[in-house]
Amino acid sequence: MDKSQKILVVGLGLIGGSYAQALSDQGYEVGAVTKEESDLQFALQRGMIRHGRTRPDADYVGDFDLVVFALYPHVFLQWLRDHQHLLKPGALLTDVTGVKVPVVYPAQQMLRPDVEFIAAHPMAGRESSGVVNAAKEIFTDANYIVVPTAANSQAAIERCMDFGRTLGFKRICTLSPEEHDEMIAFLSQLTHCIAISLMTCHDSPRLKDYTGDSFRDLTRIAKINETMWSELFLANKEELLRQMDIFIDRFMTLRNNLQAENVPEIEKMMRLSTANRTYFDQ
Amino acid sequence: MDKSQKILVVGLGLIGGSYAQALSDQGYEVGAVTKEESDLQFALQRGMIRHGRTRPDADYVGDFDLVVFALYPHVFLQWLRDHQHLLKPGALLTDVTGVKVPVVYPAQQMLRPDVEFIAAHPMAGRESSGVVNAAKEIFTDANYIVVPTAANSQAAIERCMDFGRTLGFKRICTLSPEEHDEMIAFLSQLTHCIAISLMTCHDSPRLKDYTGDSFRDLTRIAKINETMWSELFLANKEELLRQMDIFIDRFMTLRNNLQAENVPEIEKMMRLSTANRTYFDQ
Repeated sequence: MDKSQKILVVGLGLIGGSYAQALSDQGYEVGAVTKEESDLQFALQRGMIRHGRTRPDADYVGDFDLVVFALYPHVFLQWLRDHQHLLKPGALLTDVTGVKVPVVYPAQQMLRPDVEFIAAHPMAGRESSGVVNAAKEIFTDANYIVVPTAANSQAAIERCMDFGRTLGFKRICTLSPEEHDEMIAFLSQLTHCIAISLMTCHDSPRLKDYTGDSFRDLTRIAKINETMWSELFLANKEELLRQMDIFIDRFMTLRNNLQAENVPEIEKMMRLSTANRTYFDQ
Repeated sequence: MDKSQKILVVGLGLIGGSYAQALSDQGYEVGAVTKEESDLQFALQRGMIRHGRTRPDADYVGDFDLVVFALYPHVFLQWLRDHQHLLKPGALLTDVTGVKVPVVYPAQQMLRPDVEFIAAHPMAGRESSGVVNAAKEIFTDANYIVVPTAANSQAAIERCMDFGRTLGFKRICTLSPEEHDEMIAFLSQLTHCIAISLMTCHDSPRLKDYTGDSFRDLTRIAKINETMWSELFLANKEELLRQMDIFIDRFMTLRNNLQAENVPEIEKMMRLSTANRTYFDQ
């Protein structure tokens, strides 16, 4: 990646802060626009950014070649509506949003013709949010998914994939917005729904005394930022409902086979799950 | 624990082998009765046991002060019916079975009056079974649950708790058989049902390319020994069905709130799950 380009991070939260840190540590000039002065000061003191503003000032935003939006989906779209006229001509924009169809198409449709937006999803996170929990290490073992549409240039796709490598992601791949949202509904959103449901089944404080590793693993993601995740769930509502219904169907099949004491069917399902899971280890 | 006592492990699988290893490494004289000659040879070569037999021979079984049954539930009960007359008078028996009510009461009821059976559940395991995968390290961070009934002496309860400490378990506690089976239905069996259901939702091999850590954590236990687990599920059928139904109710509530776009209720559930899960970190 061209070391002379200036990079702006809009939104210094967990992901925005981790991006800023990863890029600054490699010598890029990183600036930030974020709402809270305290987040800005934290990032400046830790050397995550070289400079920043609490507002998208006209004399600041136009200075950057690459702009990363690390905002909630509706905040990102509103930012583009209000402030895109401030962007530098030729700037490349990207994002970190966890849902793509309802974000990418509206963003690309409203955008000035002299800037380009290429969507990406860093599949990394933590149980705790905010720039104070930012750490570039969360990318080390994670996937970076570039989500191009027909509106994107080949050059932008390649720059975005290169950006993922620069941030330190382990695997870089591409998916269409539709493929992305289907995949994320199953692999991420559904699993969060399961963890939430499990952790609200009982309120016995005694349970933790007997809890083994597998239950802890299964419920780690039940600690959840409710504002962000409920927005992401709703943004991907139809696909998530579809995946939830597939899961319910499998779970009820197992339940009913148990009630009927249909051991051959239970064992068959267990053999299939073992075979499918083994594939994930490869 | 008295170092002069001789310990017999009946059934050299993953758990039996790990027990044998942990005890031999501390200088106890450990013997084994197990069906397969190859398992016996493996355990002898690795120094897990000092001697062993492939059958419960009369001149062998009567030599042991402490006998651990690491068998499937129905095999354990059949063993007692067929061979308990061979046990040494005054011997203490224990087990490793994952379900208690349908095992402990029948076992204690049929037992000779001059031996005592005290149930225990080592909450440890691995994705792979068999003595070749045995390793005492699986106990290091795990819970050991002693499951006494009114038929047990205080001396036996204390010896069994001491045994758990000797094996290297991190936490030792006691539960009644009924409490144990309710707890295990929720914390272990239900989570296995969820993992099995998740891993049988889709057969797309592409999924693994996008899979993050949380999905891997959630589905690790989907690799499952179908013969053992289907027997454990059925042995605890009523309690497991009850826990599955509680989970389905929570999951459907979340699903229906999503369909109705009831954000306040979704966020409320997420805040509760976060609070409950935070408690598990303490």
